[in-house]
Parts: sequence; C-alpha cells; structure tokens
Amino acid sequence: MKALVYHGPGKMAWEEKPTPTITKPTDAIVKILKTTICGTDLHIMKGDLPAVTNGRIIGHEGVGIVEEVGSAVSNYKKGDHVIISCITSCGKCEYCKRGMYSHCTDGGWILGNLIDGTQAEYVRIPYADNSLYPIPAGSDEEALVMLSDILPTGFECGVLNGKVQPGDTLAIVGAGPIGMAALLTAQFFTPSEIIVIDLDDNRLATAKKFGATHTINSSDGKAVEKVLALTNGKGVDTAIEAVGTPVTFGICEAIVAAGGHLANIGVHGKSVTLHMETLWSKNITLTTRLVDTITTPMLFKNVQSKKIEPKQLITHHFKLDEIVKAYDTFGNAAREKALKVILTA
Amino acid sequence: MKALVYHGPGKMAWEEKPTPTITKPTDAIVKILKTTICGTDLHIMKGDLPAVTNGRIIGHEGVGIVEEVGSAVSNYKKGDHVIISCITSCGKCEYCKRGMYSHCTDGGWILGNLIDGTQAEYVRIPYADNSLYPIPAGSDEEALVMLSDILPTGFECGVLNGKVQPGDTLAIVGAGPIGMAALLTAQFFTPSEIIVIDLDDNRLATAKKFGATHTINSSDGKAVEKVLALTNGKGVDTAIEAVGTPVTFGICEAIVAAGGHLANIGVHGKSVTLHMETLWSKNITLTTRLVDTITTPMLFKNVQSKKIEPKQLITHHFKLDEIVKAYDTFGNAAREKALKVILTA
Amino acid sequence: MKALVYHGPGKMAWEEKPTPTITKPTDAIVKILKTTICGTDLHIMKGDLPAVTNGRIIGHEGVGIVEEVGSAVSNYKKGDHVIISCITSCGKCEYCKRGMYSHCTDGGWILGNLIDGTQAEYVRIPYADNSLYPIPAGSDEEALVMLSDILPTGFECGVLNGKVQPGDTLAIVGAGPIGMAALLTAQFFTPSEIIVIDLDDNRLATAKKFGATHTINSSDGKAVEKVLALTNGKGVDTAIEAVGTPVTFGICEAIVAAGGHLANIGVHGKSVTLHMETLWSKNITLTTRLVDTITTPMLFKNVQSKKIEPKQLITHHFKLDEIVKAYDTFGNAAREKALKVILTA
Amino acid sequence: MKALVYHGPGKMAWEEKPTPTITKPTDAIVKILKTTICGTDLHIMKGDLPAVTNGRIIGHEGVGIVEEVGSAVSNYKKGDHVIISCITSCGKCEYCKRGMYSHCTDGGWILGNLIDGTQAEYVRIPYADNSLYPIPAGSDEEALVMLSDILPTGFECGVLNGKVQPGDTLAIVGAGPIGMAALLTAQFFTPSEIIVIDLDDNRLATAKKFGATHTINSSDGKAVEKVLALTNGKGVDTAIEAVGTPVTFGICEAIVAAGGHLANIGVHGKSVTLHMETLWSKNITLTTRLVDTITTPMLFKNVQSKKIEPKQLITHHFKLDEIVKAYDTFGNAAREKALKVILTA
Repeated sequence: MKALVYHGPGKMAWEEKPTPTITKPTDAIVKILKTTICGTDLHIMKGDLPAVTNGRIIGHEGVGIVEEVGSAVSNYKKGDHVIISCITSCGKCEYCKRGMYSHCTDGGWILGNLIDGTQAEYVRIPYADNSLYPIPAGSDEEALVMLSDILPTGFECGVLNGKVQPGDTLAIVGAGPIGMAALLTAQFFTPSEIIVIDLDDNRLATAKKFGATHTINSSDGKAVEKVLALTNGKGVDTAIEAVGTPVTFGICEAIVAAGGHLANIGVHGKSVTLHMETLWSKNITLTTRLVDTITTPMLFKNVQSKKIEPKQLITHHFKLDEIVKAYDTFGNAAREKALKVILTA
Repeated sequence: MKALVYHGPGKMAWEEKPTPTITKPTDAIVKILKTTICGTDLHIMKGDLPAVTNGRIIGHEGVGIVEEVGSAVSNYKKGDHVIISCITSCGKCEYCKRGMYSHCTDGGWILGNLIDGTQAEYVRIPYADNSLYPIPAGSDEEALVMLSDILPTGFECGVLNGKVQPGDTLAIVGAGPIGMAALLTAQFFTPSEIIVIDLDDNRLATAKKFGATHTINSSDGKAVEKVLALTNGKGVDTAIEAVGTPVTFGICEAIVAAGGHLANIGVHGKSVTLHMETLWSKNITLTTRLVDTITTPMLFKNVQSKKIEPKQLITHHFKLDEIVKAYDTFGNAAREKALKVILTA
Repeated sequence: MKALVYHGPGKMAWEEKPTPTITKPTDAIVKILKTTICGTDLHIMKGDLPAVTNGRIIGHEGVGIVEEVGSAVSNYKKGDHVIISCITSCGKCEYCKRGMYSHCTDGGWILGNLIDGTQAEYVRIPYADNSLYPIPAGSDEEALVMLSDILPTGFECGVLNGKVQPGDTLAIVGAGPIGMAALLTAQFFTPSEIIVIDLDDNRLATAKKFGATHTINSSDGKAVEKVLALTNGKGVDTAIEAVGTPVTFGICEAIVAAGGHLANIGVHGKSVTLHMETLWSKNITLTTRLVDTITTPMLFKNVQSKKIEPKQLITHHFKLDEIVKAYDTFGNAAREKALKVILTA
Repeated sequence: MKALVYHGPGKMAWEEKPTPTITKPTDAIVKILKTTICGTDLHIMKGDLPAVTNGRIIGHEGVGIVEEVGSAVSNYKKGDHVIISCITSCGKCEYCKRGMYSHCTDGGWILGNLIDGTQAEYVRIPYADNSLYPIPAGSDEEALVMLSDILPTGFECGVLNGKVQPGDTLAIVGAGPIGMAALLTAQFFTPSEIIVIDLDDNRLATAKKFGATHTINSSDGKAVEKVLALTNGKGVDTAIEAVGTPVTFGICEAIVAAGGHLANIGVHGKSVTLHMETLWSKNITLTTRLVDTITTPMLFKNVQSKKIEPKQLITHHFKLDEIVKAYDTFGNAAREKALKVILTA
C-alpha cells in the first residue's frame, strides 16, 4: 500500500509500505476513506517529538471501512464504516475504567506516534471494539473526520474541563482548528459571551461567523486590558488556552476571574510562569488534559442532530496521494486561510 | 479597652484603644473570650502586607460573647457565645450567593487586616448574622477557636479542592498548623495513604500521631523520589501545598499523578514555575482558594460528634495580656515546638 | 391602593386595600409595573391551598419600581427597577446558605400565600436585598416578568435537576407554561431530541415552534409506547413531569431509561404509585423541588444576551385593573390558547 | 466437579456437573477457594426469580485461583488469585463505558442467574479482564469475599447514591448484611450520626458495634417519630433503604429531610406509594441502583489499608460441600444470628 512516511526532521514521503495485518485478536484493519492533518503532525515533521522515529506512518484521524477483524472483536465486522479515534483504549486498564483513555496503559495516543497511523491506505487499529465508532449509512463522512480528534479535544480539554455554563463569559485564546472546535462545542452550554483572541484577522472573522460575540487581535499586546474592559474588570468565568506558549498562557492567567477556570488545551514545549502571588487567593481552577475521547458518542449524536456543523472547519480538499501538497497548504495556514484539510482516498 | 496594635514592621504593642461600637444595623460587638495567632499575623508584623496600616488591631480568629447587636441582626443577641469567622460575609452580594464568601464585595478577609481584629478585649463584627456561628452551652470553646480559620482553611482549600476520596493516596507538603488541619480533616474521606512532608522531624512525629501513614523529611532534597518510590512511580492522587514557596510548590507539581489534583493552600509571595511541558497531557487539576468558611457549620458538627479533635493542634496557653510573649513563642515555632497558641481573656 | 383580594373559594375582588409600609429594616416597598397570573393562583382561587386565608392579596410574580427601602437595605434605592422573585430569601439561615431559598426559615414561597402579594398596585418585599433583582435601563420589562417564577422553575426543577446534557434525549410531559419554560431552558444544554407530550394539539404545535423535535398527543393513552418506539425501546435520558397528576407521573416512570433522570416539577395533590419492582435495578434518579430561584441572575444574563426569548410565552395582555377578566382568560387556557398573560399597571 | 444446583422452588442439590471450559477468547475458568450465600440466592431458591431455570448452578460471589484463560485475556494468567465480581462487564458496550456495568449489554448480573455461578468447584467467568480483580499474595482472602457483592452494593447503591457527607445525619433502614455493608462503608465519609433501624435487637446491637450512633427497633411502628425526635423534627440528610418492602420504603420517605437523599438498595417485589403530595416541594433526590461494582478497586484499597474490616460481617464457616447446611443456617438468619457465611473449598 501507499502511506505518508516520516524520515526524520523535514523529510517525508508518500511511498510503498507493507499493508498492515491483524497481530492480536482485538485488532482491526481499516481501509482509509478520508483522513486529515493535525497541528501535531506538523510538529512531528519538524522533529519536535523524538518518540516518532524514522519510518513511521503519520496520522491519527480518519474514517474508513473495516477490512478485517481479530477473533475477539465483536462490535465491528468487515464492511462497517467507522470513525477512527485518535486515542486507543484497551477498555480494561485502571485508566480506561476511570474514563482516562488518554492514559491507557496499552494505548493512549499511539497512532501515527508509537505505531503506524492513518495517513495511509490501510491502518491497523488495536483494541478495535473500544477505539472505533460506528457510522450509520447515509452519514456525511467528511464531517465525521472532525470527531477523530479535533472536536473531542476542544470539547473535553477546553469546554468540559473549563466547566462552561449557561450565562458564562468565556474567552478562547487561539483561533486555530482546536480553538475553533472549542468555540463550536462551547455553544452546547450557551455561554452569554464568547471572546476569541488571536493574531490573525482572518481567523477572527471566521470565529465571529462561528459564534464568537467579541474578537480581539492581540498583536498590539493589549488583549488583557481589552478583556478586562469588556468584563467590568472582573475577567472571564473560563479562559481556554488553545495555543501552547508562555505568552498565550500568560494572557489566560491574567484574564481569569476570581472563582473562574483556566482550561489548557495547547501542547506546551516549555514551562510557564504561574503568578501564585496573585492567584493563590483567587479561587481558580486550572486544568490540563490530553483528550480522552470519551465524549465521541455524544458529539456524534449532536452532529447527527445538526446541533453542530463540523464541516465548517474544513477549508481545503485533496486526494490522499496529494498529501505532500496538503502538508504544504496546512503548514502555511495563515497564508492559505486553512483550518482543516480533507484527504480523500 | 486593651488591644494588640500594629505600628509598622516589627512594632506592636498591647495598648489602650477605644472600645468598638455598632456602626451599622448589621453589626455586632463581641467580647473576646479566647483568641489565637495565625501565621499571617507574623507576616503582617514583618510588614509583608502593606494594606495593614499603622494603628490596626490585629487578629482574625476567636470565640466570644455577644455584647450588643445592631437593629437588623436577628440570629444573635447579647449573651450568646459565638465563633468568629475569619471571613466576613454580607450574604447578599454575587459572591456570597455563590458560596465564595472570601470574595464578598463588602467583606472577605477584612478582620485584623482592613478593619480592627480580634486580638483585643472587644471586636466589631460586620454582618454578624452571616459572620458568626453559635456555640451551644457546654461546648469546649478552646477547641472551637480552631474553627475560625485553620480548620476550614485546611479543609476547603486543601481537602475539598483536592477532592480527597476513600482509597486515595494523599501527600501534604508542610506540617505547620494549616498542613495539620488538612491532615486531620482529610481523614473525613478515608484516604488509604497520607504522606506528610516537612523539614522538621518534630512536626513529622506529630503528623504521624495525627494520622499520617508515611512521613518524609525533605531536607535532603529527595522528597520527590521518595514519594514516587512509595507510589510505584505513579505519584499521588492529591498533593496539598501548605507552605507557599516555589520549592514546596515544585514538589507538589512533581508528585501529582496523572488524573490527580494539586490543591494549593499556601500564601505565596512570588510566582512559581509551572512545568506545562510535562503537565499539559497529565490531566491534572490545580486549585487555589482563599478560605470561604462555608464548611464551618459542618466542621462544627464533626467537632461536636468527636469525629475530629481540634484541641490536639493547641500546644501553648497564655493570658490575653501576655500576647506579646505569645507572639515570641509562636514566631519561633520550631524551637518552641508550637502549633497553635491559645490566648484567654 | 387597589389589589386583587381572595375571599374564599371562588371569590375574588379588585378592591381597595391599605398601601403597604416598611415593617422591618430589611423590607422594600415596590410599585408594581407588570404582573402575571400563575397556575398556582388558580388553585388558590379554587380553595386548594388552605393556608391562603380570606383577605389575602394574591400573586407572586412581577416587575416594579422601588418606592421605599428599610434602613438595612443596601442593594436597592427608591427609583430602581426590579424583578420580584416568587421566593423570599433571608440570606442568612441554614437553607439560604445552602442555596435552598425555597426552604428559607423566614421566607420561601410566602408572597401571595402567607403574606400579601403582587397582584396589587404596591407590594411589601421582605429581605429585599436577597429577594429582588436589578433591571438595567432599556430592558424589555415584560419579558423579565417570566423571571419571577416560571423560567427558574422550569430550569431548576426540570432542567438542572434532570441533568439535561448535550446529546441527550429528553421528554417533557405537560406543555403548559411550566413545561414550555422547561422546553426553552433545556435548550441551554443542547439535547439532541426533545419529545413533548400533552393532550392539547395547539400547545403541541407551539412546543414544536419552541424547539421540540417530536410531539405526542397522549389522549389515546399510547404516549409510553410511542416514546419507547422513538428511542429504540430504551426510553429517555431525562423525563420532566410538568403537570402534577398520577397519570403524567406514571408516564414519566415508564419512559425513563436505565441510568436516567425523572425530574418532577408538577404540584401534586395525591400520592403516586412508584414501580419499585422494576425501577429498583434501573439506576434512576428521581428529584422533587420547589424552585429556589438561585439561577435568576444566570437566566437574566441569557435573556439579555438573547439566548432565550421568554416573551414568546406571553399570549395575552390586560391592564392591571382588568385582572378579573384576565383570570377568566387564563383559567380557560385551552379555549383561549393562553400561556402567560401580562397585566400592566 | 461438584456444584450447588437449583431444581425448581425449594429444591437444590450438591451434585456432579461438567467442569466448565473456555467458550470465548475473553473467558477465564476459576477454581473456587471461598464463596458465600446472598439473600438473593434465598429468593432464587423460593422460586421468586423465574429467569433462573432448573439445572442452574447458583452463586455470584467468591474468590478463587485462575485455572485457564482465553486467548484475549491479558490481565490474568493461570495461578493468579482473584476476586470474582457479581457483575460481569464486557468493558466495551455503551453502559460499561458509562461505568454502568450492571446494565452491560452482554453481562450485568448473570452469574448464578442466567449462566452458571460460583457455588461450585469451578466457574467460567466471561470477560475475565473486566470481571475479576487481582489478589496480592498474603491477603486475607476470606475478607475479600465481601468485595464480590455486599460491600460495593452497600457502598454504591446506599452510600454513594445517598451522597453521604461529613457531618451528615444518616439513617439505614434494615440491618441485614447489606445494611451492615452500608453502615461500614458510610463511615468512609464521616457522618456525624448514623441511626440504624431494624426489627431484630441482636442485629441492632451488632450495628452499634459497627458504628451506629443510634439504633431503633421499629417493631412498635414508631420508627418515624423516633427519628424525627432525634433530628429536631427535620429528618435525616440521607435515608438508605436496605430491605425492599413498602413498609421500610415508607419509613424512608417519611424521615428524609428537605434537601435530603433517599437511596434505595432493597430488591422490591411490589410497587410502593410515593407521597408526592408532600414530597413535591421537599427538594429530595431518590435513587435506585443495581450495583455496578465500579468501586471494587477502591474498596479493595481500603480493605488492604485496614480502613474497613469486612471480616466482621462473617458469622459462620462451612466447608463447600456442606453448602446445603449453610443454606439452612443463612435462611434462618435471626435464629442463627447469621450475617454472612463463608464456604471454603
């Protein structure tokens, strides 16, 4: 089969690889129909994740058709259409039983990281019964690619951890795909105000279209004072960090109200300064999370009932074998006005 | 009347001051029976809290007898014995309605800070109906002084925010009075293991007596590795910070397990380094809180039903007019093996 | 002043009564601008509530202007426009501190019940600081009358107690004003499906307009089987009882799914049969509640930000002195296609 | 092998049956070391559970040694000592993912009910990875038999569902084995008062020994008024029903305080009368639950750390082949002063 293979920092190729086979009774082989590229894949390509080694097939999102299942798989059979979760869950370790699939002792985020991933014609999915989700006939499969990672990530790490409630004032720092996923899913809880902060006016305009009540371009360094002005000096009930830098984290710290929540989604490469000299008495809650994908079934229901339209996040389409070109487009998101790209087999 | 008055850094005196009077219909005047000294009072005396100005009567803990009440006070009358809460609550602002008395817009921590406090023969208590708690006849009033601040602080900021649950592994960093209050009240939720960490062997021995299952003297800089060794490398479900320094906070960051809680109690004077580069994916919850004293009635019930014996925290007794001497003892806690001192009028 | 006075079963009159005056420092006198009639008022008029005695001024909803305040009232002053809560809260008893204002030891539902109410030119509001809510200039005051009772009742007793969540299937039994309030506020949490059940096709058509995804006319006695058919035999995640009879309660029992919630709002006059022989193993949660009105500030924010349009509930308008005619209209709701009527002074 | 076989109402025999074998890759065969008899087994023997058919091996509790595992079992291997959960969990259906193992679509309570059970020399355990719990060497295995059913049942259905909190007043109606399990595990949350109600003075004396602060013999029909007298007329924060009759349920309804919880554990054979005419406005929460056994790992930790001593529940010992005699003893619990009996292979 053909697959996108990582060959060290800056090197990738769409090349021939052996088609995967069942190695355990709980495995399934899935033929990829549609996949996408994640910001994390760009980090991998830069060499930021040393755990990803030369020869690895990248990608952890996608929908496909079950090609073959192991003897212990009972939820799926050949021919079923499925969503592939970015998180592999064994369903039987301490963490899976607590709903913390992200820390599954034999799974977690391994696809396109520690094992071969979805930017390929076929992929092996361990613990298929717990790591795939069924797609009924007639569904819009392109939209469902957003359920592999981006929607549960924005929702679980940002919205649920941030305890967004009706009537709340919410700020989202970062209007990339993940921030947008938080923006769309936050509206399940009907906050009164959603302030989106970014450096890119195009993305801010999109955020407005997606439901932001206020947008702030933070390139002038005045985001904090603008948020405080909008909130009578109180700050926001929930601040969602959707970038992963000390600067954006610092904005969140400065704008969270007494009694509020700071929910981190961003992948951080360095430590940040936490201002405990002011925060110690502010009754705040700060959370971190690698997505567990426990809300995938719920998100699926809300996609099917049209409560959310994830398709809005898709800006570009490519054929699967044009994936190197798609990386170029997604890697220059601002220039290309790209959010999510879809690759179709 | 006589009162302990702050006269700038390092200067205090037990001196004559006007007896307080009712200034609002919601006030009460309370004659102090017993009071104590808090670690925060030592900070005030060093000049660390610039909001406390020359001439201020210090102290925010105590029990007493109601001497006089304003026309709108209905829960108390002259002669009632009461616990004075360290937090003043109006009962009618946005924050009081949310149970966040610490941020009451006309109260919060004001006693012995922004208004005159309890290290005096008499004290004026604003919003008496919401800021006092009744003491039934025959109670052990000395033990109840611990309900003014230390027990709700350890319990709310440490134990409740840390979501201590039956079967959990808990670490408490700091075995001073507040850490000890967390240790005693954590046992309401029956954790399986409680590891207490401090630099003082005497305090660690006391912690063992109070219910710690393991103690670690951190003076060798190996507290983190010892905790990881005790927990099979996983870390603790809840880490309670009860000191307020970057070093002790750093220990808490390093020992909190994936999915765990870091509950800060300590008053911090500087920022800390938060290792988001490792924490971002660990699904942790970090909380800060100034005590709200919303659990005072519950704690009172558990004191009355002997589920907790706060008297154990009391190591020294003085007469109220010996308060300067009491400050010297409490200010040299390690040398004097002091936890809480009681001053009796 | 003029007021609507209850004179025993079936007898009421719009007649002269003494204008109320401040009797406690925490009181306010409010001049009524707009009020409405509640289903409970109809019960009072039939004599179903023996606690309501001859001579009582009825009514517990409305907006008005503060005319005078007692010496301990600090949140309001003469001239402020306010929403009157149907629940009086002292803010300082055990129940108010727990957020259970409905059981306030010196308040709760007393207006137009144990003390004179709002269907009058003026009303005395005890504990004004905690029992009124401010209206900013320029608000649509008619819509805000719905915040006195009906919206918090539908939301707290039905939606919050029923733990409605995104993706859920919800059934509301009863499409009167309270059921409609539950229907509107349930959408704050974005359930996937909302099934509304009633005997009146007109109300069901309105429910559809207000956001119901399915409606069932239960007059054929087949509501249960229809709900089960719609839910693959599983039943609903949440069933809200908004009528108050054994039959409607029985429908809720029969349609609640394993693991689901049955949230009662209806005022019941008789006991019901609870089928514990099947329910004991179904992991259900059944709740009852007299509205606490703790969510009034949140609901107010969502009205101001247009997340909900309570005005849709208003079907008829009268002048305040036409109130007897308004009772006739509201008392024949099906014939008149009435939901809520507004009376304007 | 030998096993206890049900042959219709009133008929059982300890007789030869084929030794079970692996039928699915997720199965394990366990050699029984110790088992016990449940109140439910007595119901089966009376013919109350028609789903249990002639020829069924009874029993759903026990500890044993793994004899053989299927190809997909990874958590256990031959020779491991294990606790057998009364609930079988597949770990991959909708309910298992929600932590509602009791409603597992291919499991739930099936042992000794729909498939052969544990009162035998060997038992086949489906979904072994999720339905067994490991026993470390050196554990007191007799005590751990209580973790199969009785402790998680008392704890999950009674204590957790009843939201027992520090300082609460709790009543437990029924002092049989399940009520006692609730009594022991309720103390994990340190309620101030625990009132136990039963008809048997011997059991009440045992309840006192196990931590009850008050006991009431309800044979005079005055339990309700006695509980109200003990609670200043308010009733209890949590009432746990541990019998399963209309009378005992009725006591719970009458003693639950406003804002309180009624947690049902009892298996009911008939409907009960729910007094909604008084309860509708009392803000109560009523729960039902078939045990999910999700707390088994936590309970295990607290047994190992000696926070609870389940061995106290064991009153009688028999050899496994004396099981018919053991049924006679357990079936006459009051006469024999029996709580739990242990059968050792």
